[in-house]
This record gives sequence, structure tokens and C-alpha cells, in this order.
Amino acid sequence: MSIQLYDLAGADPRYLFSPFSWRVRMALLHKGLDFEVVPWRFSAREAIAESGSKAVPVIKDGDAWVSDSWAIACYLDTHYADRPPLFPAPCGEAHARLVSALCGKLVFPAAVPIALYQAYVLLDPASQPYFRESREAMFNARLEDIHADAKTGPARLAEALKPFDEVLAVCDYLGGSQATYADFLLFGILKWTDIVSSYPVIDRDTPSGRWFSRLETDYGGHAGRVPRVRD
Amino acid sequence: MSIQLYDLAGADPRYLFSPFSWRVRMALLHKGLDFEVVPWRFSAREAIAESGSKAVPVIKDGDAWVSDSWAIACYLDTHYADRPPLFPAPCGEAHARLVSALCGKLVFPAAVPIALYQAYVLLDPASQPYFRESREAMFNARLEDIHADAKTGPARLAEALKPFDEVLAVCDYLGGSQATYADFLLFGILKWTDIVSSYPVIDRDTPSGRWFSRLETDYGGHAGRVPRVRD
Repeated sequence: MSIQLYDLAGADPRYLFSPFSWRVRMALLHKGLDFEVVPWRFSAREAIAESGSKAVPVIKDGDAWVSDSWAIACYLDTHYADRPPLFPAPCGEAHARLVSALCGKLVFPAAVPIALYQAYVLLDPASQPYFRESREAMFNARLEDIHADAKTGPARLAEALKPFDEVLAVCDYLGGSQATYADFLLFGILKWTDIVSSYPVIDRDTPSGRWFSRLETDYGGHAGRVPRVRD
Repeated sequence: MSIQLYDLAGADPRYLFSPFSWRVRMALLHKGLDFEVVPWRFSAREAIAESGSKAVPVIKDGDAWVSDSWAIACYLDTHYADRPPLFPAPCGEAHARLVSALCGKLVFPAAVPIALYQAYVLLDPASQPYFRESREAMFNARLEDIHADAKTGPARLAEALKPFDEVLAVCDYLGGSQATYADFLLFGILKWTDIVSSYPVIDRDTPSGRWFSRLETDYGGHAGRVPRVRD
């Protein structure tokens, strides 16, 4: 039986945009594991109650429930060690931890003004009040006031991506010649912004833009086929 | 015959503080290679003329001259492949490139206000005019005006080190359980600031501070024995 990935869905279930779920989705693709997506909404927490988690991504692999994107990646690398590694020894884990820290310090602060309000708009009406309340408390601002326009949002994101551009000008992936979980940490955030935004987010003619397109093409073009709001 | 490392020396030749030379010095220690330091000054360019470079670090290994710290690290990993790796496959090079980009974007801008003027003061009088002119053109400011005090300098540096703290709270080295060139890229900058500064620069009670102390203790305590201005 294939792995079930509980993934945040919009009111229209074609829209699957959680940055953390994208990290897991890419990890499953990289490991070459069969999985099926189970659309999930904040208003339906009971569907994942057995996992002990209140939010997705959550996977069910046979009888095992695993929550939290980093923990899921570690689980997959341990339980499917014969598949392509997410954290290749000796420095894959430390490398991914550095990229994770940079995502928190540089990339999420630039992505939130692009994606947060747009993600809210896409949610089912029953989930919206929780999302608004929790996120407005987190950022201490109204969602509408955080939202960046088509000029300032992508410009700030491009600035945040500059350290990654330096690597990707020379290497095909953050992991070198092969993608690793370090790649998926960053890709998840960018895929989130790219799916929900009403305007183009990523300059495809930069090293990070070409890398983003490459990962959309990899794994049979899975990530590139997922619908975006502005398509 | 051991490798010769041409290294920037102060007027007092005990002070060897170039951040780029420290990267090479740590790389040589990591590879377990014998080397001797040849003190060099900006006012004595002819000593390294044969290398084709106008600045140190430069190494002479037998008949081979190699300049530029990154190129030297690549040379050492290729020519001494049986020694501990500086760029362990598969992702060591990409990892080091990311740390290099972060050093440029986050760490050097925080380290320059601590170290640049102090380094100038340590130079021999014949080297000082070139150093002042070239650095003031680079930063478009007088050296004295760039200089940060004991409160603002270390505080800004601590902020720049936060992404690294996240990794080093969990891993002994940026490379994981072993140091790699990624570690030496960052260490070189911090060692520069720590040697030349008249005030303590690094909070040793943080993850990055403990990592810094660890690298000073490693390799027989080589880095920890080098004199600092304030000792």
C-alpha cells in the first residue's frame, strides 16, 4: 500500500500549497516512493488526530504515522535507506540544517508578504478564521497589511535568494550534482509562493530560477504539473 | 620538503591574522600536511611574484605555486586525496560554496568594523599606505570611521552568526561530526577578528563560540596558541 500524505488543500482541492508539505512531497518523489495525497483542511483536524499532530504534513506509512516535515524526511531516509539519500553522509544533515536556518532568517521573511494573504484567500471558509487569527497573532499585523505588491514582493525575495544564487551558478542543486533535502527545504517555500500568488514570483532567468524550473521538471515533471492560481 | 605558506605578517611578525590565510592554515592542519609559515608583507610583493599573485595566501608545494585560498583548498584535496577531505563527496563543495556566500553576505560585513582598522594598525609602516588606500576605496569610508566599539561590533557579529548557531547547537562542526572547508571559511574570518581586536569578539558561551574554541583546540591546539593583540 502506498504512503498517504495528508496535505493542506484550498477550498478548491486542486490547490495544494503548504511549503512544509511540498518539502515532504519532493522527499517522497526523490526516494521514488509511491504516495497518494489526502486533501486536509484546518477545519478537519480529527482526520489526523491519530498522528498526535494538529497540522500537516503528516504521513501514514502502513501503521506508522509521522508528523513534522523534518521528522518525516528523517523517517524516510532511515526506513528507505536503499533509496536515494535525502541527507547524504557525511555532511548532508549539517548542510540541510544550515539551509533550514537560512530559510527561517532570509527566505520566509521575504516569502510571507507574497504568499500569506493569498494562501488565506484560497482556504475554505471554515478554515479562514483560524488561519487569520493564528497568523495575525504570529506576525502582529493584519494579513492585508503584510501583503506585498508585484514589484516589492519579488524584489525582496530575489535579494533573499542571492546566497543561493552563488551556489546554483556553479552547482545544479544545493546538494551538488544531485538534489538533497537541503534543496527541498528552499523549494517548498518558493513553490508555496509560486502557486498562490496572483503575479509571477520567481525570475526564471537567475541561477535559483533555473534551479526551481529544474526541480519542477525532475521526477517526471510532478511539481511542474500542479496548478497555480494564476494559470 | 614541507609546504611553504606565505602568510601576511604584522610589523611584529608574531601577528599572523589574514582571514584567507587562516582558511588555508586550517586546511593544511586538517590534511595533516607539514608546512612552514613564511611571513609576507604588502610591501614585499616580489617574494611571491613567481606565483602570479599579488596577495597572500600563496603556497609553494615542491615546484608548484598555488594562490587564492579556495584554489589552494581544491589543490590540497586533489593532490592529497588520501588525507581527510576538505570537500567530502557528495555535497561538500556545494555546502562550502553556500557557507562562502554567507560569509560574504552576513559575516564579513559584521567582521570588517571590528577588524579592518585594527589590522591596519598592526601592519608595518611601509605596507600601511597601500592598505589604507585600497581598503578605503573598497568601503568608501575612512578606516577610523568604519571601526566599531566593543559593544556594537560583537553584537552585530553575534547576529550574523545566528544561522550558524542553529547548526552548531546540534552538530559539532558545520561539516557534521568532522570539520570540512565550510568550517574553515567561517573560522578564518572569526580568527582574524579575534587576533587583531583590542576587545573580546566572540561569546564563547554560544554554539558558534564553543565551535570556535573546539577548532582552536583541534590539530594539537595550533590555532589556540597563536598570539592575539590583547594577550
